[in-house]
Amino acid sequence: MNQAAETLDGWYCLHEFRAINWPAWKQLSSTEREQALQEFNDLLDQWDLTMQDKKGSHAFYSIAGQKADFVLMWLRPTMEELIELETAFNKTTLADYTLPTYSYVSVVELSNYLASGSDEDPYENPRIKSRLYPMLPRTQYMSFYPMDKRREGNDNWYMLSMEERRELMKSHGLIGREYAGKIKQIITGSVGFDDWEWGVTLFSNDVLQFKKIVYEMRFDEVSARYGDFGGFYVGSLLTKEKFADMLAIN
Amino acid sequence: MNQAAETLDGWYCLHEFRAINWPAWKQLSSTEREQALQEFNDLLDQWDLTMQDKKGSHAFYSIAGQKADFVLMWLRPTMEELIELETAFNKTTLADYTLPTYSYVSVVELSNYLASGSDEDPYENPRIKSRLYPMLPRTQYMSFYPMDKRREGNDNWYMLSMEERRELMKSHGLIGREYAGKIKQIITGSVGFDDWEWGVTLFSNDVLQFKKIVYEMRFDEVSARYGDFGGFYVGSLLTKEKFADMLAIN
Amino acid sequence: MNQAAETLDGWYCLHEFRAINWPAWKQLSSTEREQALQEFNDLLDQWDLTMQDKKGSHAFYSIAGQKADFVLMWLRPTMEELIELETAFNKTTLADYTLPTYSYVSVVELSNYLASGSDEDPYENPRIKSRLYPMLPRTQYMSFYPMDKRREGNDNWYMLSMEERRELMKSHGLIGREYAGKIKQIITGSVGFDDWEWGVTLFSNDVLQFKKIVYEMRFDEVSARYGDFGGFYVGSLLTKEKFADMLAIN
Amino acid sequence: MNQAAETLDGWYCLHEFRAINWPAWKQLSSTEREQALQEFNDLLDQWDLTMQDKKGSHAFYSIAGQKADFVLMWLRPTMEELIELETAFNKTTLADYTLPTYSYVSVVELSNYLASGSDEDPYENPRIKSRLYPMLPRTQYMSFYPMDKRREGNDNWYMLSMEERRELMKSHGLIGREYAGKIKQIITGSVGFDDWEWGVTLFSNDVLQFKKIVYEMRFDEVSARYGDFGGFYVGSLLTKEKFADMLAIN
Amino acid sequence: MNQAAETLDGWYCLHEFRAINWPAWKQLSSTEREQALQEFNDLLDQWDLTMQDKKGSHAFYSIAGQKADFVLMWLRPTMEELIELETAFNKTTLADYTLPTYSYVSVVELSNYLASGSDEDPYENPRIKSRLYPMLPRTQYMSFYPMDKRREGNDNWYMLSMEERRELMKSHGLIGREYAGKIKQIITGSVGFDDWEWGVTLFSNDVLQFKKIVYEMRFDEVSARYGDFGGFYVGSLLTKEKFADMLAIN
Repeated sequence: MNQAAETLDGWYCLHEFRAINWPAWKQLSSTEREQALQEFNDLLDQWDLTMQDKKGSHAFYSIAGQKADFVLMWLRPTMEELIELETAFNKTTLADYTLPTYSYVSVVELSNYLASGSDEDPYENPRIKSRLYPMLPRTQYMSFYPMDKRREGNDNWYMLSMEERRELMKSHGLIGREYAGKIKQIITGSVGFDDWEWGVTLFSNDVLQFKKIVYEMRFDEVSARYGDFGGFYVGSLLTKEKFADMLAIN
Repeated sequence: MNQAAETLDGWYCLHEFRAINWPAWKQLSSTEREQALQEFNDLLDQWDLTMQDKKGSHAFYSIAGQKADFVLMWLRPTMEELIELETAFNKTTLADYTLPTYSYVSVVELSNYLASGSDEDPYENPRIKSRLYPMLPRTQYMSFYPMDKRREGNDNWYMLSMEERRELMKSHGLIGREYAGKIKQIITGSVGFDDWEWGVTLFSNDVLQFKKIVYEMRFDEVSARYGDFGGFYVGSLLTKEKFADMLAIN
Repeated sequence: MNQAAETLDGWYCLHEFRAINWPAWKQLSSTEREQALQEFNDLLDQWDLTMQDKKGSHAFYSIAGQKADFVLMWLRPTMEELIELETAFNKTTLADYTLPTYSYVSVVELSNYLASGSDEDPYENPRIKSRLYPMLPRTQYMSFYPMDKRREGNDNWYMLSMEERRELMKSHGLIGREYAGKIKQIITGSVGFDDWEWGVTLFSNDVLQFKKIVYEMRFDEVSARYGDFGGFYVGSLLTKEKFADMLAIN
Repeated sequence: MNQAAETLDGWYCLHEFRAINWPAWKQLSSTEREQALQEFNDLLDQWDLTMQDKKGSHAFYSIAGQKADFVLMWLRPTMEELIELETAFNKTTLADYTLPTYSYVSVVELSNYLASGSDEDPYENPRIKSRLYPMLPRTQYMSFYPMDKRREGNDNWYMLSMEERRELMKSHGLIGREYAGKIKQIITGSVGFDDWEWGVTLFSNDVLQFKKIVYEMRFDEVSARYGDFGGFYVGSLLTKEKFADMLAIN
Repeated sequence: MNQAAETLDGWYCLHEFRAINWPAWKQLSSTEREQALQEFNDLLDQWDLTMQDKKGSHAFYSIAGQKADFVLMWLRPTMEELIELETAFNKTTLADYTLPTYSYVSVVELSNYLASGSDEDPYENPRIKSRLYPMLPRTQYMSFYPMDKRREGNDNWYMLSMEERRELMKSHGLIGREYAGKIKQIITGSVGFDDWEWGVTLFSNDVLQFKKIVYEMRFDEVSARYGDFGGFYVGSLLTKEKFADMLAIN
């Protein structure tokens, strides 16, 4: 049998995309809107504490276009906590004025394609730990998309030998390295959890870098022959202040 | 003509996925919510009795992400009873505060690929009976996905000889065996009943094992060349208490 | 040019799948619900009379899972009458408490693949007439699915010669014959009428036979290489009494 | 470069499919329903005048099944007028009691595959003019479907030479000619306007002829290897009287 | 590794498609409708000022068929501003009477396939600048569609060498040049931003030219073998006056 790739798995991850129900939101009084925002801000504060305690992390971005108005991305040690976070959000007043548009369930993943042959326990390696349990950055922009490795006729990733896959991934990794310092990338695995095999979340202060890296990689054989991509979501950093502005009704 | 696989078929199976209509649920008074929960708990009690009588089984899990908030999975001796269970649930007050998001109709199935050549009636074999009429476990996590065997160009499972299919399934089964004790798997067949050919329901106390087994199997030729997969659902065990917490509104 | 298959065509056929809007239905008074049922039962009586007069036939089954709660299947001499039946149903009070979930427009069809070379007018042959204008049975279970013959690369049914198609259909027919007495099958053609090329409606007192026949046929080259299948619907016989029970609210 | 087919283009075309919102329609008083119908009939009268003036044409048919309850098909000299017609319909009271279910934007098209090599201006040829600016018939039945020419692997219509395409279209046209007198066919092109490349609208007094022509053509290489088909819609002629009956509530 | 195409990127672009909720719009008083229009016209005036200041551009067209009633297309220097424009529109009263139907996020793009080998900074070349930061025309008609370059079996654009791609694009460009003066084309790249790789927006005073150019190009190998197309939207120029007419209720 073909040798399966092995993974290191870190925090569980939920991307929660929501659209604002604008006509309903406008019908609230300004007091009601303020209370709804305050209640949500209290959750943000709690999540910030969790992040300070290194017990998880989260990101909060607006989304361009009609696919959503914002996304909440949570990282937590257990799947259980993700479900609890989602339920807690659903119980807020703000949630009643949003519509669920997309979500993604996964876990932070590192593959062994580029692993050293060392004997050490990778879960004890500080550099690896910081990648499995990452503090999400606060860059100006974020992009998310799910993807599969293709299994079609002669373009079947899973029928390639470990050696072939490792060679292809090495070349792919070289492109990624060019973008070091410009883009931070979080790979989350979703086999058995959601409809695609991986989620890719990119962070950058220059939104154009998302286009550049994904386009450049598309010419690389790993993407060109073996990449199948889902929907793409792109957006801009939200703070309490920016979110309050976004939701302000005159 | 190519030799068809034969199956042993046990209890009929319905997976019923529901999302909670949170804004409507919140508008109920706490008394109304309590009554709705009590009525649903009475159904849970009935289903527990059925399970004690070995006349069926069921599972009840929350679902991560927006695909659903919970799933009810029922096993019963007849298709008729499944329709009655679904109708009974639809008549509850709780159901009025949920939205149907997905369902799956199937029957517990064992294939003859790995069958011994013995003469005995398999339906009288206690080990087989316990697999055809299984008591669903109460593990911490559950995963569900439907799947097909592919029929595309050179990757056509149904054009392979019985011998080839048996060889491939044997290798596939060896992977499954590695996970014995970590994962309990229920295969249900749905040809003629629902849109995919099989449903796979996995139970484990370690949610990461779902990802590991499905990913490892994907490198095996049976999945790599011949597996087509539908949506994946993953969630966490619900008890009356956990469900009451989930639905509690302050 | 390749020789086209010829067909004999009988009664026109409409499958009308509906889900019940349970929360709205429950808000009616018991008198309103009784009146709605009575009005619908009057339609059932009319359709029974049409069936007694051999001027059409119909079937009425519940559907398992969320795809629908019930299906009405009508056979009539003209397409016109099907539209009138659908409109008449839409005008009932009951229809206001249902949601359309799927429908299928077709005509009862026999192909000439297995035709004798005789000179007689097949439309005058009593055995053929009873198949073109069939009285739908009242078996315990029904299954419906639409399908296409595939046209993809080397698996292109419509590029096969008449002789090849006839050979393949003969083998396919042999499987069907094994199920004689267990399953009654109605093939309806929908080329030019609806999105797939055929609808298949199966009737049986043993729901497991639906799975067995469709699975066994899937290993036959006609299905394995040339069959593309739509959604599957399965359900259980409804009578006035069973439907009243299904809709009863305490 | 491969020689592109050239087209002659006539009137612009909009197919507007609508479902009736029955529960809402029933809640109107009979006076309100009459007024709504009268307002719509006034539009029908205007469109009849346009047709008498040879400044356009239209068709009005009921649709079988749940895809729609009726279709309005308009032909006009400019795209602008189609948008105005659609807006005018949207402003009627009747439109408020309908739901848009599908629409198709195209232009009446003749291809040059079968063109004579003559020097004359085809737009001045009366036989061609009557086909580019057709008066839609009032046959008992209508069928509509959109389609593409396939571009897949070895079955790529657009990579065939002009000569090959012309040969294939000639054979295809011969089948069409068999149905002369039984079926009137309007081909509309939608490249650059809507999601498929062409719309096909068929008119006949015998609904079975739609099935016969589409099925016979499917065995012809143009359809067998190069045809991709969208949804099929079939229905029956509506007059003011028949529409009033259809909408009458007792 | 295969040489990736490089791009020049200009203004960010959002296409926002909306359908009018006619029944709700009609229920407003004429004063409320006038106020809603006035508020929207004020936004149009602001956008006109931005355009006069060369700090962006926009287009406003009606859309034929049910896909939308109108589209707003905005070009701005930052992604941030697009999100702000969308939010500002969502806060208008008019927006409450529309339904989002489709949107597209991209950035004006020029590829280097046809670039000269010169040393100059292309972002300083006035001819290139006017194409990266274009003033959108006010032609009578507009067409929009998203597209991908295909990656399927032997038809994999991204596995072609730079030289092959350049040759193919040159031939493609020659067709485009034939339409100079008839059609203005804006290519926007959306890799990493939205679900397709590019958006194509065409402007012309003759709507038929959209069909002619897209159809002619389809016979060119770049489209025939390597083009995958999404939905097509076509519409007509809106001014304040035309929009007021469109929304006027008697």
